[in-house]
Amino acid sequence: MNNEIPLADYLFQRLAQLGVGSVHGVPGDYTLTLLDSVEPAGLNWVGNANELNSGYAADAYARIKGISALVTSFGVGELSAINAVGGAYAEKAPVVHIVGTTPVAAQNAGACLHHSLGDGNFRVFANMYKSVTVAQANLIDAKEAPRLIDMVLRECILQSRPVYIEVPTDMVGALVAAPTGLIDLSTPGYSKLLEDEMVDKLLEKIQQAKRPMIFVDGFAARFDIRGDLNELIRRTAFPTLTTPFGKSLVNEKLPNFHGVYIGLVGSPEHSAWVKSRDLVLHFGPLPSDVNTFGFTASPNAEATVTLEADTITIGSTSASPTKHHGIRIKSLLEKLVAKLDGVKLAVAEPFPENPEDPRQLLKSLPTPASDSIVDQYSFWLRISEFFRPGDIILTETGTASYGGQSFVLPEDTMLINSSIWLSIGYMLAASQGVSLAQREMVKEGTRRPGRTILFEGEGSLQMSAQSISDIIRNRLDVTIIVVNNNGYTIERMIHGFNASYNNVQPWRNLEAPSYFGAPENDPSYPVTTRKAHNWGELESVLADPLIQQGKGLNMVEVFMNIDDAPVSLKKFGAYLAVRNSKGQS
Amino acid sequence: MNNEIPLADYLFQRLAQLGVGSVHGVPGDYTLTLLDSVEPAGLNWVGNANELNSGYAADAYARIKGISALVTSFGVGELSAINAVGGAYAEKAPVVHIVGTTPVAAQNAGACLHHSLGDGNFRVFANMYKSVTVAQANLIDAKEAPRLIDMVLRECILQSRPVYIEVPTDMVGALVAAPTGLIDLSTPGYSKLLEDEMVDKLLEKIQQAKRPMIFVDGFAARFDIRGDLNELIRRTAFPTLTTPFGKSLVNEKLPNFHGVYIGLVGSPEHSAWVKSRDLVLHFGPLPSDVNTFGFTASPNAEATVTLEADTITIGSTSASPTKHHGIRIKSLLEKLVAKLDGVKLAVAEPFPENPEDPRQLLKSLPTPASDSIVDQYSFWLRISEFFRPGDIILTETGTASYGGQSFVLPEDTMLINSSIWLSIGYMLAASQGVSLAQREMVKEGTRRPGRTILFEGEGSLQMSAQSISDIIRNRLDVTIIVVNNNGYTIERMIHGFNASYNNVQPWRNLEAPSYFGAPENDPSYPVTTRKAHNWGELESVLADPLIQQGKGLNMVEVFMNIDDAPVSLKKFGAYLAVRNSKGQS
Repeated sequence: MNNEIPLADYLFQRLAQLGVGSVHGVPGDYTLTLLDSVEPAGLNWVGNANELNSGYAADAYARIKGISALVTSFGVGELSAINAVGGAYAEKAPVVHIVGTTPVAAQNAGACLHHSLGDGNFRVFANMYKSVTVAQANLIDAKEAPRLIDMVLRECILQSRPVYIEVPTDMVGALVAAPTGLIDLSTPGYSKLLEDEMVDKLLEKIQQAKRPMIFVDGFAARFDIRGDLNELIRRTAFPTLTTPFGKSLVNEKLPNFHGVYIGLVGSPEHSAWVKSRDLVLHFGPLPSDVNTFGFTASPNAEATVTLEADTITIGSTSASPTKHHGIRIKSLLEKLVAKLDGVKLAVAEPFPENPEDPRQLLKSLPTPASDSIVDQYSFWLRISEFFRPGDIILTETGTASYGGQSFVLPEDTMLINSSIWLSIGYMLAASQGVSLAQREMVKEGTRRPGRTILFEGEGSLQMSAQSISDIIRNRLDVTIIVVNNNGYTIERMIHGFNASYNNVQPWRNLEAPSYFGAPENDPSYPVTTRKAHNWGELESVLADPLIQQGKGLNMVEVFMNIDDAPVSLKKFGAYLAVRNSKGQS
Repeated sequence: MNNEIPLADYLFQRLAQLGVGSVHGVPGDYTLTLLDSVEPAGLNWVGNANELNSGYAADAYARIKGISALVTSFGVGELSAINAVGGAYAEKAPVVHIVGTTPVAAQNAGACLHHSLGDGNFRVFANMYKSVTVAQANLIDAKEAPRLIDMVLRECILQSRPVYIEVPTDMVGALVAAPTGLIDLSTPGYSKLLEDEMVDKLLEKIQQAKRPMIFVDGFAARFDIRGDLNELIRRTAFPTLTTPFGKSLVNEKLPNFHGVYIGLVGSPEHSAWVKSRDLVLHFGPLPSDVNTFGFTASPNAEATVTLEADTITIGSTSASPTKHHGIRIKSLLEKLVAKLDGVKLAVAEPFPENPEDPRQLLKSLPTPASDSIVDQYSFWLRISEFFRPGDIILTETGTASYGGQSFVLPEDTMLINSSIWLSIGYMLAASQGVSLAQREMVKEGTRRPGRTILFEGEGSLQMSAQSISDIIRNRLDVTIIVVNNNGYTIERMIHGFNASYNNVQPWRNLEAPSYFGAPENDPSYPVTTRKAHNWGELESVLADPLIQQGKGLNMVEVFMNIDDAPVSLKKFGAYLAVRNSKGQS
């Protein structure tokens, strides 16, 4: 064949075609030659300090850009990243994990190579990865490689979950047929007929409903439907709630948006209202214990229509709902919204008065005394005034993720939290991935400018602190707000409030930029660190033009009381303590 | 039964009986109640900043104390640690990994719990761990739990490899029969008859040998045979070599010790000499590529008697050696040494003159000019003068592990390097585990006092930097010598010398103690940081009484040229580059 290129070039060219702009990873001797193909494909090498942080960052980058690539070495490198890839699997982030493996002949010979267990088995780690990836390819055959690469990348995007590609060192330069055209990303089993039928069915249900609601969960963020989803909410005027995971998908300015549904943590009146709906349009559900407040924030199954990427499931009075596979949620929603033109709907039964709505609370919040310590209750409400359209906000699992439920978000903001995997340490690394994706998309003209703002606990920050180095190395713009309350607060709320195992070593957090090598007085990359011991200091810090601007690296450390926590965390912590000890599910 | 105690108490009491003094780990909501039993069992909680570092530290602690315990949370916590446990499996460190899992009922119900993949499968992570542990117990039944715990701990110690114990949150307090007596640690299938027969056979071989040698590899460190092994070497006067992994097991003052056998990296004369032995007593082999310099530093199989924990394998002229299972290496060696009393042996053919012997090189090394940059060749030799009996020295994979082959070690020192897993980042965390084990053993009177001295690259340090926080939190005495040569030198030597992927973000390394919260001016925990840009500065730093003493946390940053490396690394890097690209094993 005339048009042959090295296998590694093929792989990275395909990734570039699909929208990858930067490749995350850590080099190792089994990946070095592979990495020579990154820059020639027009891609940027991130070069993380360690693999777990690299995997976390790749996951977050994928949540923003729709795909990411992560390169690690066989054995040690890939195992260091497996927790991150597990999280990407659980929370549906399309990460392409490329592993540089040992030469094919050595594998076949069962050689006792470094980074192996020494037992001659070179399939061990790929087998572990089977549980956390939706497709795998071991590129030991140049003829098969292009087809396998395309297949695996297709599954990554269609299923929005991680895939795994092994590249033996001696296959890196093997010549393969150059890519022709694009990878086919059409929905398998797609039926326009079914989709149209479903649009009509939904329209009918919408017209007939007397007590409808819309319930938006976080997997809907993977469907690229934000515009039409909000249009549906606006036009139907149906009362709309989200889960914690789904927060920020709905425009909080809409009068029929009523915030996060918090089940047992909220009022019984709200739960009763949700349970008595006759139609629930449920988008992208993640039915985990934490996202449903111990399975108490779930809608009435019989009345629920569940909408996922390529499937609609319609609840019925029988126990078995009907599942229709072969639609495309994006085109279905587009059609549905179009058909709503001129359709007159019954006025939906309104959501009960909600004194706990953050928008109400924020309005009536008294201004705290300047010299009083920053309290969790006011902080998570008042910080909303710092946000601007375009911002991407990340809340680390723990105090911050619960606190973030009280945010009042401007439009076109995105909130990232973890709602099943909950790997503490994820969010700091994620902010690196987010900021990088954001920078690339603003450059490409596919996102409006905005800041990357992270709310991090001082305990969780310790898990992945060297991500700050990755942020600096890549000259990324990140604002890190460290909530320092002296230990693992979420754990204290569950068990062992005073136990020493819930303490952490106290760090001098604001020395991080200097330790990790941030430039000093470089106007192209400003670095600002500030402390806030009380409300007065916090207000002055947040008003600082450098912090407002969000350019470069900004770290703000806010000190709070050890026994303070968001209300919902306190309540849910108590529930978990009982559940864990009694064994209830 | 009268004598019942909570399951968690049983577990930690058994660990204390076996010699665990401290429990490594990171808390999580599925482990909190479990951790309440740590201190009542007389154990100390380490409280690491993250799980990978915790696993690494537990591995190293186990290499010193003979067992360690690691507690992580289900899912996220255990996956973050799996690379460390893989290393413990590959390099035979007896780590007991205890995982706090979800309540039994929730598992049985397939509930969608946090830290799971959301698919109702709670066996996924335990299954991954099957490949890197030698025994597992899932404590879902109080009646069975004591037997399972004992079985698993027994396998951990007998096989000197990691095991895995799952404790569901609701089983923590389940009452179980209190331990009676000690866990049976006798060798399975042990035969005194066979052992005596083997002693005689070995004695006969030793007496008949004309061209014998002793070859000591690193797994011999797991057999607790150091005393008798050195006695065997002394009494037979057989020329003795070690592998890189086995270095420090042989007293380097013995006249018949000839250093590390480096295969193709060394002289052909030495290789020919080794190949022509008629008897090789080979202790604890790890036949990995790096430990054998690409399989070129292996003895003649036909002449080899391989001695492992419970097995002797006798090479023969046929292709299939005879394997005898059911001995105890410790008692066998004791008997063998006793029988050597008064036995006259032929004078063994001497090892060829070795101008590369570090002991010779060190003697003839010219004193470098004070203002000249520290060079790798002289550094790894001259630093030996800093070592003292009792020291435990760790060399991180890369420049340091190759450099450490040139150490001239005083007696009663221990050298820890990685020789198959080679997970960069391991060694810093390992120094925490080593120092803790050392402190406990000195207190118990089972080790002489000595320092923990780590040689770390500035790139590998980034992987696990928060271990410095763990060192400070536990007030451990560690001297960290950071070799700063501006990037991943070992990778540069293999491929891409100037490639950007071999760069690292430059950190201000000596700010680490301050960032990680080291006390200032606390006489009970001194913290010293020093830089050395040339030989004069290095000499002054190493002569500093605080650095000499090794109390508290000491960090010395030594700057070296980017293109400098130990000779053996340069040569082996070139070999690996060829092997990786050509696919040879």
